[in-house]
Amino acid sequence: MDTHFQKELAKLKESLLKMAGLVEEAINHSVQALVKRDSDLVDKTMDLESRINAMDLDIEEMCLKLLALRQPMAIDLRFITAAMKINTDLERMGDQAVNIAERATSLNQEPPLKPYIDIPRMAEIAQTMVRDVLDSFVKRDSKLARSVLERDDLVDGLNHQVFRELLTFMISDPASILRSAHLMIVCRCLERIADHATNIAEDVIFMVEARVVKHHAEEREKKEE
Amino acid sequence: MDTHFQKELAKLKESLLKMAGLVEEAINHSVQALVKRDSDLVDKTMDLESRINAMDLDIEEMCLKLLALRQPMAIDLRFITAAMKINTDLERMGDQAVNIAERATSLNQEPPLKPYIDIPRMAEIAQTMVRDVLDSFVKRDSKLARSVLERDDLVDGLNHQVFRELLTFMISDPASILRSAHLMIVCRCLERIADHATNIAEDVIFMVEARVVKHHAEEREKKEE
Repeated sequence: MDTHFQKELAKLKESLLKMAGLVEEAINHSVQALVKRDSDLVDKTMDLESRINAMDLDIEEMCLKLLALRQPMAIDLRFITAAMKINTDLERMGDQAVNIAERATSLNQEPPLKPYIDIPRMAEIAQTMVRDVLDSFVKRDSKLARSVLERDDLVDGLNHQVFRELLTFMISDPASILRSAHLMIVCRCLERIADHATNIAEDVIFMVEARVVKHHAEEREKKEE
Repeated sequence: MDTHFQKELAKLKESLLKMAGLVEEAINHSVQALVKRDSDLVDKTMDLESRINAMDLDIEEMCLKLLALRQPMAIDLRFITAAMKINTDLERMGDQAVNIAERATSLNQEPPLKPYIDIPRMAEIAQTMVRDVLDSFVKRDSKLARSVLERDDLVDGLNHQVFRELLTFMISDPASILRSAHLMIVCRCLERIADHATNIAEDVIFMVEARVVKHHAEEREKKEE
């Protein structure tokens, strides 16, 4: 095995882990900007997003070079194409953190609506999803990736619950409508982040098992057997 | 040049165009399900999404095979990696059409809120974005891709406008709150579809010009010069 190639793959892994760390931090800052009503954390989220975007470009470049110069086969090919997709998903998570931070800016100019409980909970789950799914990628651990898939339902459930709660607020107090609408969007953003982590989990499982879990392909296969 | 390889690339192009056609149709059906209050169109959207998902798997497979067996260089490599990303974006647009169709199902059980004008307009722009961006991909036309980037602002503007209008509805008539909240989500879905088209446009420009337009990299480059 070509040691130089292995080193390049290790560097790619390392970069994606670093980028995922920045994404986790951005999610945390954006939601804490809301919870703590702290606009400094909005700025920090924006800074992190710039760094995430810069890494996106670097990693894309790195992957294209590996494909062009190394012409990898089988598992290495799947590893690099998975890395390209993971890169894109991480970058879009950064965008969602910025969306949350923007809503926090608007919300922090109004009186607080209620203590936030479920939203930080959603953010926390989303962050562990990001951490674990990247871990599953570098360790080629499809079992861990599957645990990330399961957590997506948890986030969807919380999103549903908060949506209903915010509707009740809106109906009982029209003065809360604008703030509630902003918070609905924040929840959608967190749900989108969890969706991106789910997409990555599917790519990891495909990479490790060379098997497609998207679109309930497994269920379809079983039925066909 | 290897003619067989060229045929395979042509087949890949054709498949993506066909998939994009299904996506356009799904967007149209999902929004018409809302506008015409027609639940049959909800079912049609779901059927289209299944077909889109099946194509996603086929195209992914096709791209991986081309990368592994043909070991393409330069422009062909960028073409295939762009195809993989376009495939993912198209598949996610299909998901958004399903989200819209689901909201239409809820909304069609309630009395109509108001005649829809801006939402079908947003959907129409989003559809032309999908059509044109795929066209720009197969023709390697970065000028057309740039025109798609510009239209994203139009969709964002409409989304903003409808959001404010729906807030006014909510405030003046609490009975409209649930319906307005559903419609806000529909607008977000259309905005997401336009974002996916924008992502594709960026990939096309990168493919054609081997130059990154994401994250205002062009502006940064200019400043650095």
